[in-house]
Amino acid sequence: MARIVKVAAAQLGPIQLADDRASVVARMIALMDEAATQGADLIVYPELALTTFFPRWHHKDRAEADQWFEREMPGPETQPLFDRARGHGMAMSFGYAELTPEGRHYNTSILVDKEGAIVGKYRKIHLPGHEEFDTERAFQHLEKRYFEPGDLGFPVWRMLGGVFGMCICNDRRWPETYRVMGLQGVEMVVLGYNTPSVNSQMGEERMDSRLFHHRLSVQAGAYQNATWVVAVAKAGEEDGHHLMGGTMIVDPNGFIAAELPGEDDGVIVHACDLDATRFGKETIFDFARHRRIEHYGLITQRTGAEPPP
Amino acid sequence: MARIVKVAAAQLGPIQLADDRASVVARMIALMDEAATQGADLIVYPELALTTFFPRWHHKDRAEADQWFEREMPGPETQPLFDRARGHGMAMSFGYAELTPEGRHYNTSILVDKEGAIVGKYRKIHLPGHEEFDTERAFQHLEKRYFEPGDLGFPVWRMLGGVFGMCICNDRRWPETYRVMGLQGVEMVVLGYNTPSVNSQMGEERMDSRLFHHRLSVQAGAYQNATWVVAVAKAGEEDGHHLMGGTMIVDPNGFIAAELPGEDDGVIVHACDLDATRFGKETIFDFARHRRIEHYGLITQRTGAEPPP
Repeated sequence: MARIVKVAAAQLGPIQLADDRASVVARMIALMDEAATQGADLIVYPELALTTFFPRWHHKDRAEADQWFEREMPGPETQPLFDRARGHGMAMSFGYAELTPEGRHYNTSILVDKEGAIVGKYRKIHLPGHEEFDTERAFQHLEKRYFEPGDLGFPVWRMLGGVFGMCICNDRRWPETYRVMGLQGVEMVVLGYNTPSVNSQMGEERMDSRLFHHRLSVQAGAYQNATWVVAVAKAGEEDGHHLMGGTMIVDPNGFIAAELPGEDDGVIVHACDLDATRFGKETIFDFARHRRIEHYGLITQRTGAEPPP
Repeated sequence: MARIVKVAAAQLGPIQLADDRASVVARMIALMDEAATQGADLIVYPELALTTFFPRWHHKDRAEADQWFEREMPGPETQPLFDRARGHGMAMSFGYAELTPEGRHYNTSILVDKEGAIVGKYRKIHLPGHEEFDTERAFQHLEKRYFEPGDLGFPVWRMLGGVFGMCICNDRRWPETYRVMGLQGVEMVVLGYNTPSVNSQMGEERMDSRLFHHRLSVQAGAYQNATWVVAVAKAGEEDGHHLMGGTMIVDPNGFIAAELPGEDDGVIVHACDLDATRFGKETIFDFARHRRIEHYGLITQRTGAEPPP
């Protein structure tokens, strides 16, 4: 019997500095209701879904940035989202800025089952950008200022009859991300992102190039690990800063199964057969037969590149 | 000053069982002469360039397959290739089946400098296919029968003012291949391949899908390590078995800089600026700043996938 998971990729349009969480949650619920009419089992929202992409703003006093963080999940503003998902019997995943009781800051996503229980948590490992105000950049990207690198690795979870993993935004450009989950038999990776349409360090690199890099990384990760990947954007113009779209569902052969046009709130639903991962996992990417870990040592021994003398 | 290397990707059309090495070497020399008129510094030929793609043929007695292997390099039949390259002042790389004095068999490629000295050797690590005759397949792919996995890792070499690496065919589908070289600062990866146009285990997977997977893997490897990649096919119909083309030169942003149409002998030359690798290596793929090896452990600890209980 085929293991079909109907996944909704729920893109969010821009969230302005002035928008409060209640208004964003209302938009997320509207997308969820739409996904429910299409029978979705799981809905996936973007990275930092509840607020504007605040790492573009420099707070000299870091503590000021705590306004963007959630101290509890669910909290009063997000509880309605959990309630509605449970009402629909829909699993969900979304990203948010997490402030722990110990005062630690992470760029986090969660996996919530159909009963509304948080069954998985992931904290973003590959933080792009920089820590201090950078006068060389066209705009700031201060993820390394506001977040610590994730401390939970790349776990996977059994849910909806399959094996699920998460990553966030820049993680999708790193083949290690998918491979660590692939080595745990992942069948669907869900990820959200906020990706500026322009490279802050190279103005001539425009959106078509950046969409190409996005698709290239996600499609390669899917193919090379024979897994579904659901990639969901926050898109459009946030207070004068443009984020690209490109929300898509990629099949275990690396092909785009469904793609959402535009940069507004919107949802695409696709019926993903988790058994479609088997052919790749049992043939060309049967890791047990083909990987040669004795030659991969540098990947875990060395962080930076060291050219030969 | 820009570091420009003019690279010739020299695709070979089919080589039949009946074709002897002298005839193949003559074809390779013709391509080299053409590359020389375009000022090439380096010419790259396919995997197993000197013979038909013999792993499709089952020799019950493995020793019979030794006819396809080279016991010395250069040998009498390949010496003219080395002589001509030295005459042109052109570096080169090509693949061949290597039989060592100790009786070991490898799918090998070499890097030869402008003076005709073999400065680098690589032995294919990711051997696809199978060891015994497989009645389930549309045709055989017996690389695991005729070769041992390479034992030299993925080294890099300084040549022509840059850092060069090699891999072979199926290696290009494995992100570990590029990453191990990327961690050594590779600026150009050269690779040859013989890729059947049809999946021997899934007849409906046709050439357009397989070309997509080829490009996807190579372009992702280039982008994610900010390196040039030169990928060269043996193509066309060998004794009734079709190999796909897709010879191309990919830039350090993952874009195809030059591509050779068709499936015949042919050459494309592209002036590759090795300094174009710097932007990627110093920003988004500055490994030292962004990689988190503490979370990559499974990549080297575990060969096969182990799904959660």
